[in-house]
Amino acid sequence: MPENLETLVTDLAVRARAASLELAVSATQTRNAALLDLASRIDASHEILANANDKDLAAAKANGLSAAEIDRLTLTPARLRHLAESVRQVASLADPVGEVMEESTRPNGLRLQKVRVPIGVVGVIFEARANVAVDCAVLCLKSGNASILRGGKEIFETNLALALLISDSLAISGLPRDSVQFVPTTDRAALQVLLKLDKYIHCIIPRGGEGLIRFVAQNSTIPVIKHYTGVCFVYIDKDADPAMAESIVVNAKTQRPGVCNAAEQLLFHEDVAQALLPRVGAALAAKGVKLLSDDASAAILKGAGVATELAAPSDYTKEFLDLVAAVRVVPSIEEAIATVNRDGSAHSDAIITADKDAARRFQASVDSAVVLWNASTRFNDGFEFGFGAEIGISTDRLHARGPMGLRELCSYKWLVTGTGQIRA
Amino acid sequence: MPENLETLVTDLAVRARAASLELAVSATQTRNAALLDLASRIDASHEILANANDKDLAAAKANGLSAAEIDRLTLTPARLRHLAESVRQVASLADPVGEVMEESTRPNGLRLQKVRVPIGVVGVIFEARANVAVDCAVLCLKSGNASILRGGKEIFETNLALALLISDSLAISGLPRDSVQFVPTTDRAALQVLLKLDKYIHCIIPRGGEGLIRFVAQNSTIPVIKHYTGVCFVYIDKDADPAMAESIVVNAKTQRPGVCNAAEQLLFHEDVAQALLPRVGAALAAKGVKLLSDDASAAILKGAGVATELAAPSDYTKEFLDLVAAVRVVPSIEEAIATVNRDGSAHSDAIITADKDAARRFQASVDSAVVLWNASTRFNDGFEFGFGAEIGISTDRLHARGPMGLRELCSYKWLVTGTGQIRA
Repeated sequence: MPENLETLVTDLAVRARAASLELAVSATQTRNAALLDLASRIDASHEILANANDKDLAAAKANGLSAAEIDRLTLTPARLRHLAESVRQVASLADPVGEVMEESTRPNGLRLQKVRVPIGVVGVIFEARANVAVDCAVLCLKSGNASILRGGKEIFETNLALALLISDSLAISGLPRDSVQFVPTTDRAALQVLLKLDKYIHCIIPRGGEGLIRFVAQNSTIPVIKHYTGVCFVYIDKDADPAMAESIVVNAKTQRPGVCNAAEQLLFHEDVAQALLPRVGAALAAKGVKLLSDDASAAILKGAGVATELAAPSDYTKEFLDLVAAVRVVPSIEEAIATVNRDGSAHSDAIITADKDAARRFQASVDSAVVLWNASTRFNDGFEFGFGAEIGISTDRLHARGPMGLRELCSYKWLVTGTGQIRA
Repeated sequence: MPENLETLVTDLAVRARAASLELAVSATQTRNAALLDLASRIDASHEILANANDKDLAAAKANGLSAAEIDRLTLTPARLRHLAESVRQVASLADPVGEVMEESTRPNGLRLQKVRVPIGVVGVIFEARANVAVDCAVLCLKSGNASILRGGKEIFETNLALALLISDSLAISGLPRDSVQFVPTTDRAALQVLLKLDKYIHCIIPRGGEGLIRFVAQNSTIPVIKHYTGVCFVYIDKDADPAMAESIVVNAKTQRPGVCNAAEQLLFHEDVAQALLPRVGAALAAKGVKLLSDDASAAILKGAGVATELAAPSDYTKEFLDLVAAVRVVPSIEEAIATVNRDGSAHSDAIITADKDAARRFQASVDSAVVLWNASTRFNDGFEFGFGAEIGISTDRLHARGPMGLRELCSYKWLVTGTGQIRA
């Protein structure tokens, strides 16, 4: 019934918008109280949550989801304890709302203040992961935003149970229950309706695979902050320290290969390829990494007895998210920079070098969200940046670029204070 | 030939993207030199520009455009001198690129720097105004962005002539000619192609009527920064100074009624309506303003001999852009705040009061880009804010809110500097 669906989703957005105006002027301690209450409620509701989760897991098994997919849906007692703990952690963070970002007095005496305020209503569209609903609701609430959460059908029952807990925590703390809304249907048509409600919703954050994100970007008339792929490079410059090159490449590639800030692409300056490629290649191979090489790299690796295969052209722009790396030799730092800007995804790219000028040049010219010198790409992360929490990593250039924490969930407004000034 | 059109527009975007990487690392003085050269070139090219402009004006007359529309297309010698002067002014502004916005050192020794960088490629879609092409090209160039300009067909010949000047100024200063691109066709299909090129274009700024802006927002897969209507309110609180109320309302409504930050809606607290409405209403009427009133306001105004008509419900959310104002009486500041948040457009809203607490409450609760206390709404403006220049006023909440100057044409990136750190 598409008409009913439109009414349902629109009504939910209207109520979220009304709640957002209350939230924007709510006291820090009120929002924190709701968060702490939610943490206790999660701790006290293991059985209810496990029962709901079991329904999703049974459906997942019946629908033949993979073991990895089912694992992502599963809420174990340990994971529930961790979830409650993460909610408490967010409660303990500083409130970004109300911070004066800039202040000045104009020649005519007008006083200007640029003040951080919540965005308003944030829509989060996510796929099947058990922790995302609470993570996003909590970060939005802390930053004074109302949220509308639309999760995948695979996690519907679990989300519904979590939604009831959140709603009660809001109410008991004196905040509007409408501050956090779950879309109570998994009909795809509801998403289409939601993405056009730019009158009530101010920002959409899609979290999931590239397909979901492209769908949202193409169908939304609401501004979207998104995260496409992480095709991250490590460039080993001619002045790289050998031990550091090995250590950083191994960490960037293997410490957690399935995430967006893991390295996928390796570039070696030709002056050091002969010396460093065998060492780094062997260290990666020892960790089970499959190397896909260009001709020059393959010759060096094979000469040193390190296994490799020839890369296909498409491998040089690929996000493997696995124990696989593409390897190339480049004749110069200029070529390295051009390669990163052409083949990468402007996410997290590193140079290893002892040459300060080369590092500065790389950091200035590589057009990526995070450009690292002598550090692992894995550091592009809200927690590592000291944000305390992270709702995602933006590969956009507007509003937020790189890790998104509480501040990045805020907008600002200008307060102008006068004594009767008029414009001439 | 839609295929050729797609190739043409895509090629233009690809070249803009390549130019943007050069621009991003170009020296401030090089960009300034190009701007100063352009100013001289405009001064030296009055005849060429007038000839091109004459073609547009002849077409405009043949097509029956209104006198006001034709005036907006016209480049007089005085306007050309003003245009050159404005280009020189932008050259004299501080370069936002490279500013370190934040800096910190993490416990593991990693040094983080958040550095202002250009957005990349900015697409500007505008309607028929003679100065917009140069204004936008110049602000983008100063902030290190490549730009793609797509103007209305009514100003095509003028823009083409200006494009040649800009291209020569870029080349003679050693910057890529591709840094500023004009879409050399007025075919609407070209715009459709352009708005999907999110691989090469990072931001779209539409400048024009609401129809154009909605079209762009609905068809773009590229992030859009937009400016919808300015339904601006002035609320005269019960503690308003009478002379200040009169002066600010008259200024906000009549100083330039056709612009977005002009006041359209007036709210009077019921305690002062009897005393202030006749005074303010008479002052507005003396400036030729037509008052559209609710029942309470109408009774007071008529009783005092001030002409008014009853407002239609739709008048209370209207952007008149003319010497017309809607007037209502409200029982409380709470009702004033709720009215502004419900009926306004979150642009520029003012309270007139001597009561500090009331002012603070209004500024905190009114969810608008600029909230003014005892000052005219007309101050929501990049020049008045000290930005030196303005590409528009954003009514969005992401990236930029309120006036957009050079800084708002920038993104940022994170430079991470380590000594071999890896993630545990």
